Amino acid sequence: PKVVTLPGDGIGPEVTAAAVQVLREVAPDVQIEEHAIGGVAYDTYGEPFPQRTRDALQGADAVLLGTVGGAQDSVWNTLPRPLRPESGLLALRKALGCYANLRPVRVQPGLEHLSPLKADLARGVDILIVRELLGGVYFDGDRKIDGATAYNTMRYTTPEVERVARVAFWAAEQRKGRVTSVDKANVLEVSELWRRDVTALRDREYRGIHLNHEYVDSVAMLIVSDPSRYDVIVTENLFGDILSDLAAVIPGSLGLMPSASLGDGAGLFEPIHGSAPDIAGKGVANPAAAIMSAGMLLRHGLKRPEAANQIDRAVALALRAQPTRDLGGTADTQSFTRAVMDALE
Amino acid sequence: PKVVTLPGDGIGPEVTAAAVQVLREVAPDVQIEEHAIGGVAYDTYGEPFPQRTRDALQGADAVLLGTVGGAQDSVWNTLPRPLRPESGLLALRKALGCYANLRPVRVQPGLEHLSPLKADLARGVDILIVRELLGGVYFDGDRKIDGATAYNTMRYTTPEVERVARVAFWAAEQRKGRVTSVDKANVLEVSELWRRDVTALRDREYRGIHLNHEYVDSVAMLIVSDPSRYDVIVTENLFGDILSDLAAVIPGSLGLMPSASLGDGAGLFEPIHGSAPDIAGKGVANPAAAIMSAGMLLRHGLKRPEAANQIDRAVALALRAQPTRDLGGTADTQSFTRAVMDALE
Ligand SMILES: CC(C)[C@H](C(=O)O)[C@@H](O)C(=O)O
Ligand SMILES: CC(C)[C@H](C(=O)O)[C@@H](O)C(=O)O
Repeated sequence: PKVVTLPGDGIGPEVTAAAVQVLREVAPDVQIEEHAIGGVAYDTYGEPFPQRTRDALQGADAVLLGTVGGAQDSVWNTLPRPLRPESGLLALRKALGCYANLRPVRVQPGLEHLSPLKADLARGVDILIVRELLGGVYFDGDRKIDGATAYNTMRYTTPEVERVARVAFWAAEQRKGRVTSVDKANVLEVSELWRRDVTALRDREYRGIHLNHEYVDSVAMLIVSDPSRYDVIVTENLFGDILSDLAAVIPGSLGLMPSASLGDGAGLFEPIHGSAPDIAGKGVANPAAAIMSAGMLLRHGLKRPEAANQIDRAVALALRAQPTRDLGGTADTQSFTRAVMDALE
Repeated sequence: PKVVTLPGDGIGPEVTAAAVQVLREVAPDVQIEEHAIGGVAYDTYGEPFPQRTRDALQGADAVLLGTVGGAQDSVWNTLPRPLRPESGLLALRKALGCYANLRPVRVQPGLEHLSPLKADLARGVDILIVRELLGGVYFDGDRKIDGATAYNTMRYTTPEVERVARVAFWAAEQRKGRVTSVDKANVLEVSELWRRDVTALRDREYRGIHLNHEYVDSVAMLIVSDPSRYDVIVTENLFGDILSDLAAVIPGSLGLMPSASLGDGAGLFEPIHGSAPDIAGKGVANPAAAIMSAGMLLRHGLKRPEAANQIDRAVALALRAQPTRDLGGTADTQSFTRAVMDALE
């Protein structure tokens, strides 16, 4: 199988290199091909998602992404929107057709003290957020800024709602069987459609799943004050952007949060943390999330659950043996990665 | 001066009665007139914001609102959208022209243990969220659900952005002088306008204010993991709905959170908690937020800061002397209210 890696900007290259090292170890037959994305791609090719990268995706079975984007005051942020690093990321998601973004939020036993929440609230949290990734206000073409007025359009169609809801129901079947669908149906028509279609799909095809509906403002509260109430959360693109980042603080370090974006073709696997330009190139970034993303790649992209479990176990051990700075330890990128390699069975 | 009270649904009448009792004590000259809103207004008049209520607002100097809405499975939620309780609330905001919703989030000294956050994160938190309340996706007329597709439009104009930003800058001048404007300018044109206009206004008229811009997903993280970094937060309607509810969990009980909505005419003052149908009519609801909303009414609506301070001090004392059930105590609505009355100087 062929995996395309897109290291990207900031600490992306460092953490991706660590993930590739581990990936090679547990899946030596995988062919790895590196390409450019984001700000560095703009610097080299004049666009954040160059044609050569696009072409390379053709034969790929899965894509391992680093991070994309520069500092607040980066010159990249002064470019026209389509040339900015983030546009490269959005174009990549679209090109791969990855409509379902899976973000597991799990508090590792023994690491509750890292959470900003009280330990008894953080303990045992195990949520899977399924975020719709190709619709809503992100991609709709009906958008404009023009003098003193601007607008964007939040639009969904039934097929868009159903395909992502299906992923949530499927995931819930392997978990506790509960799905919370999040919307703002008391205000938005687009949420009314969302709620109606998610409900109809459950009634038609997933009767064994317990489905409930909650408003996005209420979920923002409850995910902090009572996170254990959630199993699988499914929501539209913008709400998912906000809620998945919010939930990601519960384990205490973004350095621990992988993600998978799935669609009909090759999946996209990436840590959810940013490019952290302030520590880029220093060799101190925590590569755990990138390594765990390689684990998700093995599980969902290459259908190798055994290799994925191997990585998850090794990361859990390494987090105890060699915690990185963001976790209150002293390990740098290399020593953490070595600890993972040592812990692989 | 004339104050219109709109007790509304669920626990609204109980907590509003408590607030009125305190209000009468510190401002005996205020004339109080009660009217209907929400589900109970629908039940009596066939609409959630009846004409008689609308008429009564004409001569009002300020409006004290209880809570609006029923349980998830209430029949009100099966009505056509314009007849639902929430539509009454939105119509009320619009009728009053209240475009700036102020939500102070303050952790009371000594009550850090109530927070879901670790005590050292909760300690000293003092944020003012200014939410735009009449624009964006809430009110834009370009909205539709039609068969298998639905959309809403998130639209802003420069005057809408400027008037609410002005309130944020003004508030920051009486606080620590720092404003964080929240948007999703890396994806949305409407956010690009927002950011541009907020920046221009600061540069033109509020040079003494320190302004920074953050993305909504990042703020959702940081408000939990590092809440002390914020002074005043200003944002558009939908982001403000989510972030202000999120921030409201930090003090540990929604029962402690008042709000003020200001515009060019009479202001609207209300607790941010919901109608809590499960405990309605039992006399156990915490009226602190409603009483503090009466305090905000005195401060912002009637320009009586001394009376407002009196209420704030009395509530702080009562919270220690007679904590209600949501705060781990045993006081009911009446005994808490009596404690506030006793503590008034
Ligand atoms: C960089 C940005 C466009 C992106 C998004 O909003 O989707 C990011 O926040 C994310 O969640 O991956
Ligand atoms: C009830 C609902 C329409 C309302 C809103 O979204 O504005 C509520 O959540 C609030 O924040 O006051």
